[in-house]
Amino acid sequence: MQNVTLKVAGMSCNHCVNSVEGALKTIGASGKVDLANGTVHVEFDENKLTQEAIKEAIEEQGYDVN
Amino acid sequence: MQNVTLKVAGMSCNHCVNSVEGALKTIGASGKVDLANGTVHVEFDENKLTQEAIKEAIEEQGYDVN
Repeated sequence: MQNVTLKVAGMSCNHCVNSVEGALKTIGASGKVDLANGTVHVEFDENKLTQEAIKEAIEEQGYDVN
Repeated sequence: MQNVTLKVAGMSCNHCVNSVEGALKTIGASGKVDLANGTVHVEFDENKLTQEAIKEAIEEQGYDVN
């Protein structure tokens, strides 16, 4: 398993948390949003997912990944 | 029909808009959120709904109605 913490702009409330964490779950990753810091900590299987796929899943929810 | 504009605290994104407008639709009212101003304009049938019921529907979504 691999861990990465991404800076994500635009997450403002618990709906956003659910949206981002849900999208990560859908692609098989496990995400934990830190709303106060604007970050998402993601754990994923590097044999099945790329960091690019994770970034795209978050961006598809309408947020910018830095 | 009756119209009222309520000041609602805590709405921060489009998820919040959908949450509030959806809750109003569920009880048979029609709501339009103004995110920038933190207000909700509500149209409702005063023979079927009270302003108190509208307030409660919004509060149940986790927002404060002032």
